[in-house]
Amino acid sequence: MGIRKIASPANTLIKTTRKLFLRKHRQAENVFFIEGLRIVGEALRTRQEIRHIFFCPEMLTSEFGHELIAEAEQMGLDIIETNKEVFNTLAQKENPQGMAAVVAAREDVINSIDRHPGVWIGLVGIQDPGNLGSIMRSADASGSRGIILLENTTDAWHPTAVRASMGAMFNQRIILADYEELRTLKGRVAVHMVGALSQTAQSYRRYNYPQNMILLLGSEQKGLPQQYTVLCDGFIHIPMKGSADSLNLANAASIILFEIMYQHERKKDD
Amino acid sequence: MGIRKIASPANTLIKTTRKLFLRKHRQAENVFFIEGLRIVGEALRTRQEIRHIFFCPEMLTSEFGHELIAEAEQMGLDIIETNKEVFNTLAQKENPQGMAAVVAAREDVINSIDRHPGVWIGLVGIQDPGNLGSIMRSADASGSRGIILLENTTDAWHPTAVRASMGAMFNQRIILADYEELRTLKGRVAVHMVGALSQTAQSYRRYNYPQNMILLLGSEQKGLPQQYTVLCDGFIHIPMKGSADSLNLANAASIILFEIMYQHERKKDD
Repeated sequence: MGIRKIASPANTLIKTTRKLFLRKHRQAENVFFIEGLRIVGEALRTRQEIRHIFFCPEMLTSEFGHELIAEAEQMGLDIIETNKEVFNTLAQKENPQGMAAVVAAREDVINSIDRHPGVWIGLVGIQDPGNLGSIMRSADASGSRGIILLENTTDAWHPTAVRASMGAMFNQRIILADYEELRTLKGRVAVHMVGALSQTAQSYRRYNYPQNMILLLGSEQKGLPQQYTVLCDGFIHIPMKGSADSLNLANAASIILFEIMYQHERKKDD
Repeated sequence: MGIRKIASPANTLIKTTRKLFLRKHRQAENVFFIEGLRIVGEALRTRQEIRHIFFCPEMLTSEFGHELIAEAEQMGLDIIETNKEVFNTLAQKENPQGMAAVVAAREDVINSIDRHPGVWIGLVGIQDPGNLGSIMRSADASGSRGIILLENTTDAWHPTAVRASMGAMFNQRIILADYEELRTLKGRVAVHMVGALSQTAQSYRRYNYPQNMILLLGSEQKGLPQQYTVLCDGFIHIPMKGSADSLNLANAASIILFEIMYQHERKKDD
């Protein structure tokens, strides 16, 4: 489609794109907004369905940035050149890099879990999009298959979650499900479920994690709801010192995910 | 000092307290602002130097909150009862719990490291106060002694860092130091320093961590500056899968701290 120019912040496409900061507009359009060189680069590399790419020549100083534009042009994407004024109405970053895009939100179905065996992470009622984003990053770095967002867990396409994921979200399958769907899955494929608890359970270092499993985590405040614990085949907790006796949820998830990865890698070496 | 009432947002103390959101005012007064039941409770429990406690009866609905006020009264602290209007000019939380305080910022000196042997964490040029806060929380939960803030690392008394620490900051010694001070310490007490790198080094799971050590971490973008690597006795990295090939700094720090704690606990059991 080549490069076209938009010079007014009141342009319809620019206005529609700004609205994507609100969940209801993301859901209505089934797209979301990404910003920055690294994440736009990841979207291109992982062949996401990119609807529009925005760039601002005055801000886009890096060679990598211009390479991305050339690549997008070759792919026939819709590329929009804006001025600083227009770009700043879209930018959320403190120091905008002059590159952004609108991408299709790729939601997976629960049956994806048996089609893609491995480690999955089920998050129940997580409110902080920053935590969700950095969990997606740790999930990718530890070789997990994807994330299951249960109950009223925050939206994976929230700008804060997207930013914190640093592009890792494009390498994770994202499933929105409810309790009944998870229960049905469990009845159908007997996937192993491990629940993380704050109270005493087996140490996360002593648990023998199967290759195919779902790690279930609740929120810091409420933990794992009782009905989810009923689905679990086993429970773990992270032994702690100190007086605060709790961890940030993303930190806790990362500690457990890297233990699982380590165990699985060690088995390969045997 | 008992309970006194302030009904105007223009009151001098309220105005001075609001200014503490800016670093220059925190530094000038050497105090900082905390908000919420849990952290004010931790400040009381750990015997911090509390200058003022603010509470708003209309918002303070929990029994625990009223117990804290009674405890503060018994300790002879300066307690200020405000209305909703005044409290809302101080509150940063989305759902204020009606309790806040101004507390002395307790900065430690670098010699504290040899007086309190154990695991210390040196952070070099960390910009995100939320990451710093959750690292303090993981440091406390893994039994670390304290945090050394090096170079232009963000301020431990930043409202976001304080909030993310969930009170754990009161159980960690906090040292502000520069490179020369760290180098002098190393020459004097030969403390073992382990540098975390993003490039290939020994796996963090295979390193043999001494009981007394400093874990040095740089920022996600820049890593550990070269002059700091010169001080290190050894290097570790976290092996990763996935394509993003990096972790959020607080997640990476937590993974390493819990490995160190696990190794040290296991040695005790031997």
